[in-house]
Amino acid sequence: MSELIVWTYDWVPEGPRGFVRDIRLRWACEEAGLEYSVRTVPFDERGPAHLAHQPFAQVPFLSDGEVELFESGAGLLHLARKSEKLMPRDPVGEAQTLQWTIAALNSIEMVSVPWWFLEVTGAKDNHLTGWLESRLAHIERVLAEREWLAAGRFTVADLLMADVLRVARGRAFRHRAAPEAYGARITARPAFRKAHADQMAHFAAADKARS
Amino acid sequence: MSELIVWTYDWVPEGPRGFVRDIRLRWACEEAGLEYSVRTVPFDERGPAHLAHQPFAQVPFLSDGEVELFESGAGLLHLARKSEKLMPRDPVGEAQTLQWTIAALNSIEMVSVPWWFLEVTGAKDNHLTGWLESRLAHIERVLAEREWLAAGRFTVADLLMADVLRVARGRAFRHRAAPEAYGARITARPAFRKAHADQMAHFAAADKARS
Repeated sequence: MSELIVWTYDWVPEGPRGFVRDIRLRWACEEAGLEYSVRTVPFDERGPAHLAHQPFAQVPFLSDGEVELFESGAGLLHLARKSEKLMPRDPVGEAQTLQWTIAALNSIEMVSVPWWFLEVTGAKDNHLTGWLESRLAHIERVLAEREWLAAGRFTVADLLMADVLRVARGRAFRHRAAPEAYGARITARPAFRKAHADQMAHFAAADKARS
Repeated sequence: MSELIVWTYDWVPEGPRGFVRDIRLRWACEEAGLEYSVRTVPFDERGPAHLAHQPFAQVPFLSDGEVELFESGAGLLHLARKSEKLMPRDPVGEAQTLQWTIAALNSIEMVSVPWWFLEVTGAKDNHLTGWLESRLAHIERVLAEREWLAAGRFTVADLLMADVLRVARGRAFRHRAAPEAYGARITARPAFRKAHADQMAHFAAADKARS
């Protein structure tokens, strides 16, 4: 029996469906062929029990026997240590995977998520647009030259970068051919499609249970 | 001879001195007692040679023999694998260190750096303040209950979180006693003080070379 458990919400509104970050952990498990199960915490009530597992009142978190981790990026790096399908084992390939995984979190998402936050909260003039454009121009240059971010093969860094870029779509993103093609190619992988379908089905089932 | 090389700029203006992220790698090497040297790339000219090492036109990056990594967070996790002083070796302690290292980058810095960006670029109404306050309230609750973020001891997660919190000082930070005390305690460590003094001296020497 697998001990890997991906924890997510029992329900979310329609807007975030397909984007809740448990998808990253589901996707990685699917790529690696790791058995896992999905369990839930209440979306409506995030009290001390939730905060004990995820101190920022978010999801996902990952259980692996006695080990438990919050932060999807940390969960991905933990899973990458369990399967060479997610990260090569040679020191150079591992370092490249690590740097691009962190780059997705701290060079792209650190700008793209606050940019998106300002967009959806209706700030009239999004002062982060220029910064996001600059970061996307850099990643565009990289992606125009190579098929994969690290080690000449699919790694967990591609998984995370493609998921991060999904959120950055919009005026800052759609006119950039290389990131668009890269994101489309990576998210066409069967493991992503299964993870996405499973998340959508999970929340759809929650609707039925609620009604 | 040590092969560890921390790469930073040859010079920066006064504003960022003491905050350039090579300080994170210097600090980690000092904590771990790892020999390292510091080398530079031009601040004024960040052409293809720089982008080949750091595709977002930033610093630092880290060389370790044949391995090279950009992203300070990736460099820290790489160094943590070299020294138990930075990260315990038991699976639970390692997972806790990893999750809090990523949390510093993706739950705090992902909000605090764009917040700071809006502050310094003079946006009249900083729409990220509420979000930053919420994240700081969560970390305040955690820090009020414990001395160290992970594994009951100093780890690279404390190093990174304390450095991230240094940037978040201001109206959103100073009235929060636990993060203030935590940041002051962690940055009072001799290894931080040496890393900070070394960075300040490095850029002061660059002034003399320029004049």
